[in-house]
Amino acid sequence: MQDFFASDRPVLVVAPHPDDEVLGAGGLMARLADAGRAVHVAVVTRGMAPDFPDSLIETVRAEARRAHAHLGVTETHWLDLPAARLGEVPHGEVNAKIGALVRDVAPGLMLVPHVGDIHLDHQLIFLSSLVAARPHQADYPATILAYETLSETNWNAPYLSPGFLPQVFADITQTIDRKLEAFAMFESQVRAAPHERSIETIRALATLRGGTVHRAACEAFVLIRHAA
Amino acid sequence: MQDFFASDRPVLVVAPHPDDEVLGAGGLMARLADAGRAVHVAVVTRGMAPDFPDSLIETVRAEARRAHAHLGVTETHWLDLPAARLGEVPHGEVNAKIGALVRDVAPGLMLVPHVGDIHLDHQLIFLSSLVAARPHQADYPATILAYETLSETNWNAPYLSPGFLPQVFADITQTIDRKLEAFAMFESQVRAAPHERSIETIRALATLRGGTVHRAACEAFVLIRHAA
Amino acid sequence: MQDFFASDRPVLVVAPHPDDEVLGAGGLMARLADAGRAVHVAVVTRGMAPDFPDSLIETVRAEARRAHAHLGVTETHWLDLPAARLGEVPHGEVNAKIGALVRDVAPGLMLVPHVGDIHLDHQLIFLSSLVAARPHQADYPATILAYETLSETNWNAPYLSPGFLPQVFADITQTIDRKLEAFAMFESQVRAAPHERSIETIRALATLRGGTVHRAACEAFVLIRHAA
Amino acid sequence: MQDFFASDRPVLVVAPHPDDEVLGAGGLMARLADAGRAVHVAVVTRGMAPDFPDSLIETVRAEARRAHAHLGVTETHWLDLPAARLGEVPHGEVNAKIGALVRDVAPGLMLVPHVGDIHLDHQLIFLSSLVAARPHQADYPATILAYETLSETNWNAPYLSPGFLPQVFADITQTIDRKLEAFAMFESQVRAAPHERSIETIRALATLRGGTVHRAACEAFVLIRHAA
Amino acid sequence: MQDFFASDRPVLVVAPHPDDEVLGAGGLMARLADAGRAVHVAVVTRGMAPDFPDSLIETVRAEARRAHAHLGVTETHWLDLPAARLGEVPHGEVNAKIGALVRDVAPGLMLVPHVGDIHLDHQLIFLSSLVAARPHQADYPATILAYETLSETNWNAPYLSPGFLPQVFADITQTIDRKLEAFAMFESQVRAAPHERSIETIRALATLRGGTVHRAACEAFVLIRHAA
Amino acid sequence: MQDFFASDRPVLVVAPHPDDEVLGAGGLMARLADAGRAVHVAVVTRGMAPDFPDSLIETVRAEARRAHAHLGVTETHWLDLPAARLGEVPHGEVNAKIGALVRDVAPGLMLVPHVGDIHLDHQLIFLSSLVAARPHQADYPATILAYETLSETNWNAPYLSPGFLPQVFADITQTIDRKLEAFAMFESQVRAAPHERSIETIRALATLRGGTVHRAACEAFVLIRHAA
Repeated sequence: MQDFFASDRPVLVVAPHPDDEVLGAGGLMARLADAGRAVHVAVVTRGMAPDFPDSLIETVRAEARRAHAHLGVTETHWLDLPAARLGEVPHGEVNAKIGALVRDVAPGLMLVPHVGDIHLDHQLIFLSSLVAARPHQADYPATILAYETLSETNWNAPYLSPGFLPQVFADITQTIDRKLEAFAMFESQVRAAPHERSIETIRALATLRGGTVHRAACEAFVLIRHAA
Repeated sequence: MQDFFASDRPVLVVAPHPDDEVLGAGGLMARLADAGRAVHVAVVTRGMAPDFPDSLIETVRAEARRAHAHLGVTETHWLDLPAARLGEVPHGEVNAKIGALVRDVAPGLMLVPHVGDIHLDHQLIFLSSLVAARPHQADYPATILAYETLSETNWNAPYLSPGFLPQVFADITQTIDRKLEAFAMFESQVRAAPHERSIETIRALATLRGGTVHRAACEAFVLIRHAA
Repeated sequence: MQDFFASDRPVLVVAPHPDDEVLGAGGLMARLADAGRAVHVAVVTRGMAPDFPDSLIETVRAEARRAHAHLGVTETHWLDLPAARLGEVPHGEVNAKIGALVRDVAPGLMLVPHVGDIHLDHQLIFLSSLVAARPHQADYPATILAYETLSETNWNAPYLSPGFLPQVFADITQTIDRKLEAFAMFESQVRAAPHERSIETIRALATLRGGTVHRAACEAFVLIRHAA
Repeated sequence: MQDFFASDRPVLVVAPHPDDEVLGAGGLMARLADAGRAVHVAVVTRGMAPDFPDSLIETVRAEARRAHAHLGVTETHWLDLPAARLGEVPHGEVNAKIGALVRDVAPGLMLVPHVGDIHLDHQLIFLSSLVAARPHQADYPATILAYETLSETNWNAPYLSPGFLPQVFADITQTIDRKLEAFAMFESQVRAAPHERSIETIRALATLRGGTVHRAACEAFVLIRHAA
Repeated sequence: MQDFFASDRPVLVVAPHPDDEVLGAGGLMARLADAGRAVHVAVVTRGMAPDFPDSLIETVRAEARRAHAHLGVTETHWLDLPAARLGEVPHGEVNAKIGALVRDVAPGLMLVPHVGDIHLDHQLIFLSSLVAARPHQADYPATILAYETLSETNWNAPYLSPGFLPQVFADITQTIDRKLEAFAMFESQVRAAPHERSIETIRALATLRGGTVHRAACEAFVLIRHAA
Repeated sequence: MQDFFASDRPVLVVAPHPDDEVLGAGGLMARLADAGRAVHVAVVTRGMAPDFPDSLIETVRAEARRAHAHLGVTETHWLDLPAARLGEVPHGEVNAKIGALVRDVAPGLMLVPHVGDIHLDHQLIFLSSLVAARPHQADYPATILAYETLSETNWNAPYLSPGFLPQVFADITQTIDRKLEAFAMFESQVRAAPHERSIETIRALATLRGGTVHRAACEAFVLIRHAA
């Protein structure tokens, strides 16, 4: 059966910080890459001294490169806005950077963080991504999905911040192991259970999201727009 | 571009009363039929004396047959539950009737009324449709969309009943005229403007829903589930 | 640290059908029983012929008895309203049956199904439980929590039916195994993965709910009321 | 300043049970009656034996008559549907009774109970009132407001049932005392503090709702529709 | 029939950028001006070089002047905060500018953009308008309505950002043509169909909003507060 | 009966401006202090010239000291971020200041302002408080409650901003008088009725929140998280 992951246009995954894209959509990225789609990742922010030591920044970036290669990512775009300081950057600048990339990549499918995540960077990037993808001319991303990020999505305020109640389930039975391997490559970021950023919790989430639609493993998304 | 209307499995449109399916999805039905998909309509209720005169019931049914033929409907299923009295029918019976049809038709795409419509029949059929489509075995409708019904969806209580805030937009530029013709065939049901059930309002809604995604005419839907 | 599971008053778990209470709160029930609290279960409905064969009903009931014993349940109350037909029972009668039990048991903590579950029985029992626990005199259940039920809570309509976004997390690290054993005793009800009612999915849910608050395993709840 | 209570058309207050209308809108009713508007009350249900003793029913009805006279009510309409059993009455019948009254009274302003109240009768009457007031011809009630009922509105499930978050505040500084007197006439229904149905709580609510808009006393409402 | 547009106090329409006020409330502005009310417009932002060329800014401003004259606007107030950069302006400064105008104009009715619009300027101006209109003394705007803006309101995230579900419908049958003429005067801003900012879409929206309450054309609003 | 206020760990009340903590939780603070718990208050902002005259700042601070002493506060922490300018402070700095305090105090119970309050400072402090209390290691505040602030919580936009619909009710029958006395000590902040910041309205709110759970006086809260 064909489905809305079946387009042959590029995919753009917008990640506030390296590893968000793997936590939220690593399995789908691998599946789409396997199917021959071009998969682009935009890493919007960059840790900057003195908030983050330079050595850590290089480490994480190297980890991301390995993980992306493992998942079959076509190209990673480093937008280099300051991590954890996005509220201090003019909103128009974030819009412009993501907007330029949307024009260049011309994705058919766009995956964005969830506006209800506890991290302000995630909230601001969500809004800028929607601005960048506005349907104000004939061509724009036909499908926009918000992904969930362990250690962000479940830590905001139930019923007061926007809830993550997914309607879209992507079968990742074939790629869940590759997703876990890719996340494990972020050695500086992975945590031991019972932390939410642990391999065990990531696998549990995939099992649960899969069970909801009778599949062995899924990633779940909230649909923002699908025009077709 | 391929999309989630691109499956080759049958489509099942669940209509509480004849003409709801045309108001909510007549353009998409015609588009999918043109593309070679089998399009089934389930008319769940039947007006019954003394609530409704027999002559009217036959008239509406004949109108529906003409309209469905005009839109390319493959088959219309009359479930014959009592119109405007669905609250008096055991919930399990409604579930069973729709469930049997889902098993027979095995749709890939299911279109259902919106749970926030003001008509209790719509609310109950929404719930029964979801029960019938539960993903409790490997095969089930991959996509469920709720459609909007002029004269029902806008007349419930804003912010207190479930709101209709669509994320899915189906381009019906090629079939909007056929939709309007099909609705005009319901001579007993069409109303003069400014009634919501008028040709003018249906066209205005299609123009507005189209404009939202830069298309000449669209039908809009709320996504309930998409698994792929 | 003391907490709101620390009262010495009885606990009442309201289950629409046998096994809902184990899916939703089996781990907490065992933990509270271990701590010396009286744990009561009310099984509100009974499958009835011809909807359900008599043999199945007896089987499920025997399974429930074993499971409850394994979890340390003090007493199981069979309210014997007709399963899957609660919409046909006068609302006042459901209120009255649950109300009488609340008066008899005088629970300090009450666990109820979630109003957003896809099963109409769950929705109606939620409302009747709240009616039964109204604070219209000095004494009433101080704490009411809604539990989640795999195969019910995730199958309703995201954003249109009430969402389950938990704020209360009960640590069941010590009792998760007992919960899984108790559910396995429902041999007629357990399903193979990837069904949501499988041992694998129940464990995944516990791992996820635990990870959210840095614990190995949790059950999660939505708070309805806490007065203290 | 003129306002939307300034029309000269009749007012219709829909009360599930006698005294709901006084709790929710007694002050506004008196104010509008003082201003010369015709104020109609529809008491939708009647307690019936054996649920309610005949003597109590007559008592409450007599209390309602006194209270209504005190508030300046033009006419009280007793619809005599069975109290606490509205779920057993065909939905179409409730619609029809309220619909007939709306046609007869032709109100410009309609006050209805809140759909989020814990009492099922309130929920059903809310829906039927909206059906009765549908804008499907040129004339219909221009304004519909939902009122709050102490002992009903605050006892449902926060965030899961529809919340009461008022936007409309009616100044009842001149009539709050009359409202309290009218409620006190329901000797069989008034409760001692700290019950929500006490004089003290009613006054506290009026003070709070007033304070929100810098007035000594207000009644607050949720707007359902205003067309003008 | 009198209504809440019937006060004789001034009206204040808060527009983030020139033409928002016409898209959202141009028909009502003309109707109220015709009825003799003073209609004030506050244009909160001003495009500034280098984001916007000076020539464009003058053009738009001249267009706004013509459009306002056509609609009968009493006075236009240019607050000159930087367009698309409101997030960089201290919140207190926006509050202060709008607050000063509210004190000067002393409006009875205030029309503001919708907080759920996709443009951050709209969101921030909504909040500042509410701060400016707080009921912390005896006099304040009795009625606050949020209007919808084509190309802003429909492009945010359904169910995640605040939805626009109107309860207030203003009949603009007499002024819809003048509204369209006024918008056409914004020659630099009008777009060809099927863009949302086209004459066709504006008319379609008016027809739809009208049909919902059986009128030929309406503008629709969400009520924020009405105190009377 | 024990309850979730029964822990022996410290309490931390986060107040955007002095007196918010008394309005929202003064009664509970006194009750917990009486019960021997350490009660800490963090006053996050400080009025600064020229927005606020120095004399006023000293006055308010002295008032707060008296009020806190009257309520039995253990220690008041002045974080000295600029009042009404929190949007201009880097988000990470607010997170860091509150985060350091959470580490030092190690509270079991944390009381925070409501994210739906109309004051931007309240919204930002809510988010920073949740960031500070993230469960990303074994120890963190087990319980987080949002309190309501008269003159802030009721003045935002119903249904568009996050609503305050409390599930937690703390009995303050024994301490309501002390709360009112403490608030009266803020002579520069208290207002005459019918302002929301008046003694009369504070008492009315306590009576209403109490009545909802059959107590003479309560403070009400929205639960953000309880892990136990």
